[in-house]
Amino acid sequence: MSYQKLTARFTQLHHFAHLGAICGWDRATMMPDGGNEARAAALAELSVLMHERLTAAEMADWFAAASEEPLSPAQSASLREMYRQWQQASVLPADLVQAKSLAGSRCEHAWREQRSNNDWQGFLANFRQVVALSREEAAIRGAASGLRPYDSLLDLYEPGMSSDRLDTLFGELKSWLPDLIQRVVTRQQSRSYQAPQGPFAIDKQAALGREVMALLGFDFQRGRQDVSVHPFCGGVPTDVRITTRYNEADFTQSLMGIIHETGHARYEQGLPIETLSLPVGQARSMGIHESQSLFFEMQLARHSAFIAKLAPRVRTCFGNSPALSDENLVRLYTRVKPGLIRVDADEVTYPTHIMLRYEIEQQLIEGKLEPEQIPELWATRMQEYLGLDTRGDYRNGCLQDIHWTDGSFGYFPSYTLGAMYAAQFSAALQRELGDFSTLLRCEDGLGAIFGWLSSRIWQQASQLDTDALVQQATGESLNPVHFRRHLEARYL
Amino acid sequence: MSYQKLTARFTQLHHFAHLGAICGWDRATMMPDGGNEARAAALAELSVLMHERLTAAEMADWFAAASEEPLSPAQSASLREMYRQWQQASVLPADLVQAKSLAGSRCEHAWREQRSNNDWQGFLANFRQVVALSREEAAIRGAASGLRPYDSLLDLYEPGMSSDRLDTLFGELKSWLPDLIQRVVTRQQSRSYQAPQGPFAIDKQAALGREVMALLGFDFQRGRQDVSVHPFCGGVPTDVRITTRYNEADFTQSLMGIIHETGHARYEQGLPIETLSLPVGQARSMGIHESQSLFFEMQLARHSAFIAKLAPRVRTCFGNSPALSDENLVRLYTRVKPGLIRVDADEVTYPTHIMLRYEIEQQLIEGKLEPEQIPELWATRMQEYLGLDTRGDYRNGCLQDIHWTDGSFGYFPSYTLGAMYAAQFSAALQRELGDFSTLLRCEDGLGAIFGWLSSRIWQQASQLDTDALVQQATGESLNPVHFRRHLEARYL
Repeated sequence: MSYQKLTARFTQLHHFAHLGAICGWDRATMMPDGGNEARAAALAELSVLMHERLTAAEMADWFAAASEEPLSPAQSASLREMYRQWQQASVLPADLVQAKSLAGSRCEHAWREQRSNNDWQGFLANFRQVVALSREEAAIRGAASGLRPYDSLLDLYEPGMSSDRLDTLFGELKSWLPDLIQRVVTRQQSRSYQAPQGPFAIDKQAALGREVMALLGFDFQRGRQDVSVHPFCGGVPTDVRITTRYNEADFTQSLMGIIHETGHARYEQGLPIETLSLPVGQARSMGIHESQSLFFEMQLARHSAFIAKLAPRVRTCFGNSPALSDENLVRLYTRVKPGLIRVDADEVTYPTHIMLRYEIEQQLIEGKLEPEQIPELWATRMQEYLGLDTRGDYRNGCLQDIHWTDGSFGYFPSYTLGAMYAAQFSAALQRELGDFSTLLRCEDGLGAIFGWLSSRIWQQASQLDTDALVQQATGESLNPVHFRRHLEARYL
Repeated sequence: MSYQKLTARFTQLHHFAHLGAICGWDRATMMPDGGNEARAAALAELSVLMHERLTAAEMADWFAAASEEPLSPAQSASLREMYRQWQQASVLPADLVQAKSLAGSRCEHAWREQRSNNDWQGFLANFRQVVALSREEAAIRGAASGLRPYDSLLDLYEPGMSSDRLDTLFGELKSWLPDLIQRVVTRQQSRSYQAPQGPFAIDKQAALGREVMALLGFDFQRGRQDVSVHPFCGGVPTDVRITTRYNEADFTQSLMGIIHETGHARYEQGLPIETLSLPVGQARSMGIHESQSLFFEMQLARHSAFIAKLAPRVRTCFGNSPALSDENLVRLYTRVKPGLIRVDADEVTYPTHIMLRYEIEQQLIEGKLEPEQIPELWATRMQEYLGLDTRGDYRNGCLQDIHWTDGSFGYFPSYTLGAMYAAQFSAALQRELGDFSTLLRCEDGLGAIFGWLSSRIWQQASQLDTDALVQQATGESLNPVHFRRHLEARYL
């Protein structure tokens, strides 16, 4: 049967992806500088191989034949997801795949130093090629799918999403978020808090991080945690690799970073074991992935009831002090302050960072903006949304993120979609199981929460499309009102 | 030109090997247990892919055509080495390659626990399959090459070597080595030494190890050092990964272990950069590889003139004490004591460990010995060669090594061949440049030594066959008299 041939081929691709995931993790966490050129070449070769195998001549015949075969509903869903990956891959010529992988590897690697040197011009030299190749990619994908060029990239990360719908969602956000930020900032001005005084030894931070990962159910038999410049969740579902960036002067950011990545990790570790090697067994979308990390970080971990569990552990690690009281940690972890860095942003101002990037990358891909114009638009929007002057500060401006360095345009919106999904999941869960304050007082409260996520999200993998998944889990399609209610309830 | 097609194909294979090397390193140093099954499957898939590409139908035509093309001497050497790899690979059917890789991965991974549990029966359950598949491999290789089955495996690691020649070399060794061991042991009985008293903090040992690696010219921009159960040198030439096993009670073994692996690493890092991706640009043989690690460890680092450089660093790290005096460290590092563990053995008793393993693996592959009979023959020979009773102690007996776990039969003789080559290189070098005592008193003495090794060995890669390499470097073929002279000069 052709369906079986397809599953065998995708299982093979899964094995190759495994090697790429581990070598990619290694490049970000372990590899010395001198290893980069050979690594980039090896990973580019792997990309070409995977692209060849995924788009081999026989695939079209197998898909045509499989669509006529009697399949169970689960098999039909599996076929649908294999088809989606195949279609997305087969429109690109192999030499473009290789060129983009090489250019991306180089640009990303050089960025690691350029970023700390505020070297925008140096970055631009590599980045122009990444943009040119991404535009080429978007044009080819757009022509094949009938989508707008940018939408065809968006579809890689968030299937079914469009810039029209994003314009609506983000337009709605813009109508109330700037006002909300203002009100919250004003309200918090009268609320005092104490900044914990370091230094906080890195090894103690790491030990505390691992303790909290364990509390959150991270399976250390099937994963590990290391250090990298830009935190990420990588590896494979049976061996999930999360990374952290420590700062000796402040443990609070890296601790939340670990909780965030643990959310990603539990989604991966919680995928159904039987279908790990097939597209239908993988995470639904980047937005749903981010909804899990943001559920862990924003919905759960910054809730006062969770901080009541976290705070004693923090004090055991770093000693008793007023700055580490339950109440002060709640204030610290719900503090709203417009800032330059996306990954350090609070959940209230975060969407402004995304709207800004979305606007830039959409225009960049559609040729309405050139790479050298990015800093100016960046500065304008940062001023407009958050009242901050960022001119000349590339390091804390448009050089801060890894995403564009390897041409992952279309990814950023997932973060804010994830925040909206997370708020919606959280609202549904608390409707069904009781609110977090009550739940976390029960002995197995965390277990109940993870059980809900596991059955509604993790174990579902990609059986359903995103909209159906969200409907089945919460009773309705994506509805941004839950995100607004969440922010108003927590911050006003 | 077909020659160019061949170099393109081998460059591609080199990229795939890169991914396998890094993921293999990761498995031994970083991977949690739960990741093993998927990793084994991914690496097996890679083996199959590489085997397919190396043995594809077009290769025979390309080799036939290339042999008619006008080639420079360097290109002819390159073609010869590509041909050798191709021929060795093309005799094996793909399903045998995959089955052996899977069985080897499983056996090796389980061995990591079975070894500490002294679980010979558990090991045997996996190991029988590894032996069966290796016999199958040897039979096929032997039939194709006209070599004896075991010799066909030996040829994978030490091209040109045969069990006939090994029988002669090892037979010669047996004629004087047991007597030498006796005399040295008797002589050292009257020589007192002090064992350094720990604990020696692992982080200090690691820092000292890195300092000594730097002294020995290890390039940290193109490599790193980590921890694994069984120390090895892996990775790729532009990113060499060496590993160490620390013991808090004793720093001396792991320090020498680091020096040993640094010898391997410098060979890899010293290969000519232009041909890294081709067989002709790779290390000559396992015996020559081992000659470099043993040159570093045995010829150089245990020499009193080098210990005079090492000892002050040791004292800076662990404090002044009589046990850390130059003289006592020389005594410690030239102590001869028959023991159970090969990797802990001194250079005088080491060859007995190899002769024993050579005898067992040769009989095992040729069907004259069954896996379950190994412990008995092991015990007999350990009694005979070293007067030690090893019955029932599998952990420190036949379960101590990683080599057989994944079916790397034919590898062990390389260690003692390496010791003989190292002694011969050392003798030639000192004839030309002056003895180590004089050399190491010069400011750039180490540089001169590494320069000699670089030009005679590292930069030669596989341009010459082993015998021609050794002749060009030293003026004669492998001659075990240098090893005997070295042992007698140092120990009698």
